[in-house]
Amino acid sequence: MTDSVRARHPVAPSAPLVADLSEEQLLARIFPHLPRGPRTLVGPGDDAAVVTAPDGRVVVTTDVLVEDRHFRRAWSSGRDVGRRAAVQNLADVASMGAVPTSLVVALVLPGDLPAEWVEGLAQGFGEACAPHGVDVVGGDLSGGPLVVVAVTAHGDLEGRDPVLRSGARPGDVVAHAGACGTSAAGLALLEAGLADVDPAAVASFRAPTSPLAAGPLAAAAGASAMLDVSDGLLRDAGRLARASGVVVDLDDPRVALAPDLARVRTAAQRLGVDPQAWLLGGGEDHGLLATFPPDAALPAPFRRIGRVRARSPLADAEPDVLVAGEVPAVRPGWDHFAG
Amino acid sequence: MTDSVRARHPVAPSAPLVADLSEEQLLARIFPHLPRGPRTLVGPGDDAAVVTAPDGRVVVTTDVLVEDRHFRRAWSSGRDVGRRAAVQNLADVASMGAVPTSLVVALVLPGDLPAEWVEGLAQGFGEACAPHGVDVVGGDLSGGPLVVVAVTAHGDLEGRDPVLRSGARPGDVVAHAGACGTSAAGLALLEAGLADVDPAAVASFRAPTSPLAAGPLAAAAGASAMLDVSDGLLRDAGRLARASGVVVDLDDPRVALAPDLARVRTAAQRLGVDPQAWLLGGGEDHGLLATFPPDAALPAPFRRIGRVRARSPLADAEPDVLVAGEVPAVRPGWDHFAG
Repeated sequence: MTDSVRARHPVAPSAPLVADLSEEQLLARIFPHLPRGPRTLVGPGDDAAVVTAPDGRVVVTTDVLVEDRHFRRAWSSGRDVGRRAAVQNLADVASMGAVPTSLVVALVLPGDLPAEWVEGLAQGFGEACAPHGVDVVGGDLSGGPLVVVAVTAHGDLEGRDPVLRSGARPGDVVAHAGACGTSAAGLALLEAGLADVDPAAVASFRAPTSPLAAGPLAAAAGASAMLDVSDGLLRDAGRLARASGVVVDLDDPRVALAPDLARVRTAAQRLGVDPQAWLLGGGEDHGLLATFPPDAALPAPFRRIGRVRARSPLADAEPDVLVAGEVPAVRPGWDHFAG
Repeated sequence: MTDSVRARHPVAPSAPLVADLSEEQLLARIFPHLPRGPRTLVGPGDDAAVVTAPDGRVVVTTDVLVEDRHFRRAWSSGRDVGRRAAVQNLADVASMGAVPTSLVVALVLPGDLPAEWVEGLAQGFGEACAPHGVDVVGGDLSGGPLVVVAVTAHGDLEGRDPVLRSGARPGDVVAHAGACGTSAAGLALLEAGLADVDPAAVASFRAPTSPLAAGPLAAAAGASAMLDVSDGLLRDAGRLARASGVVVDLDDPRVALAPDLARVRTAAQRLGVDPQAWLLGGGEDHGLLATFPPDAALPAPFRRIGRVRARSPLADAEPDVLVAGEVPAVRPGWDHFAG
């Protein structure tokens, strides 16, 4: 454990480590933090859980966080990691237009991890899930040399069609709900050792929030395509564009994303960087990017940030995403796997 | 990579490693092996999958396998690990009395892993899932220092009540479907460098099979309690006994488990060990342990292996499991987390 972890999360020398506890004792510290509501028919403790799926279809997504790749224990508490792991999975469910209902968590934990880190992780899951009526219904624990958090989240479509990445049509409005670039600003500040310049940005890197309710609202308003912005606006807009066979033309971010720009201006000035790189390339914000037919009323908190154009049938190498009609100068977000 | 891996799974020096491929290229090697049937409404490639849940409830379970803890690459191919990871999750679904329908897989993969190991892993998942109509509907990939395979499996109850661990009643018959001790014998042979003494036992350690269809059959026949035997018969019978507040009295294994005993006798003789330790204490066989009311007809392939007794109201320290009426001399199976 590094000194900076001790500084942020002081652990008494006598505080128990994971290796000091039996699986049962560790679970006894985890379970009290996990929300369980009427959707859970059978909760943790049996071979499997049973949850309601009133729609007759279930939305399923899985994501894995690996220590020193997706988070550092020196920079994020267990609670931060739990909130983040929950939110990024719930955002994937919401981006299908579904209401998140439940999740399960598989954990790999080193023996020298303080047990209270694990308790914080459970607390983080609870804090991210309970306000949305999402239950943590099961999990699995294993030892291992570093922390791995694998989450599978479920959702209910409430009778609606799922909103895919592939439904955007030329003429559609491109809209976004949530923050752009805040998480990237927070990470840049942490890397520069300047976390105190913008604690809110740093907090949003450590434990992002996502406008989960906006997903089902978008579906009900007729969204033609939607995805969760996890790897940066340009990269994820490119995914939507390719899946739909269209071009996404983003409006000038200095106007369309003015509130996001304002939010990161202090950090950008302090670090001497162009904040547009964060707005367009920064990942981990977990906003929702959606397209709507031109006549649809955008449900709050969606705001228009561009429009969908047809691909030119002649231009093979046409970019998938334009910014104010031009090829963007900013490099797209990162590849989690290569990264 | 150890020499023994090269010996079993020769990799040409020019064969690509995970780090040599983009995420897209790696996925292109994985997807062709993954089964997809009519239950999958939206498959891999979007933010989340959508699968049918005709019962209106969904059974969910998650399990994680960690390299050098649950498997060794020197002893198990990617295909073995894929089959094993699928089977142990599907067995958890079946032990609720549900029909397994789908699973998702989160993978952590080191860059120096041969890409064909990952392709083998996908093949193993396909081989374990396709015969049962189970679809692999989604996943996530991350880099990391060792292989981690986190699976979440889903099932459908087809209108039946789930069969819990807690429903066993005094007088019930204890029954088992599947193998006991074969996997432990295979592991012991591998550890002793004697894999050729019983290749079938070794194969069942590397990639166990589970009588998945027996789970729903048991539920339909009125099973009062059921679980997947993953940590050894004594240990898992103890879990069922504690959850139900009863005592499980197993019949003499030399008679009740005679076929299992015969199956591991050669290995036991060669290693000079008591094979009853494998039958009663060996894990990873993934048979199903169930209790039935005394008048129920046991569905094949269940065979009677004991009966349920009431707990004595006076004996605080009464054991949860007896063998032929006596406290068993064999130590119970292992604790995955401490192990």
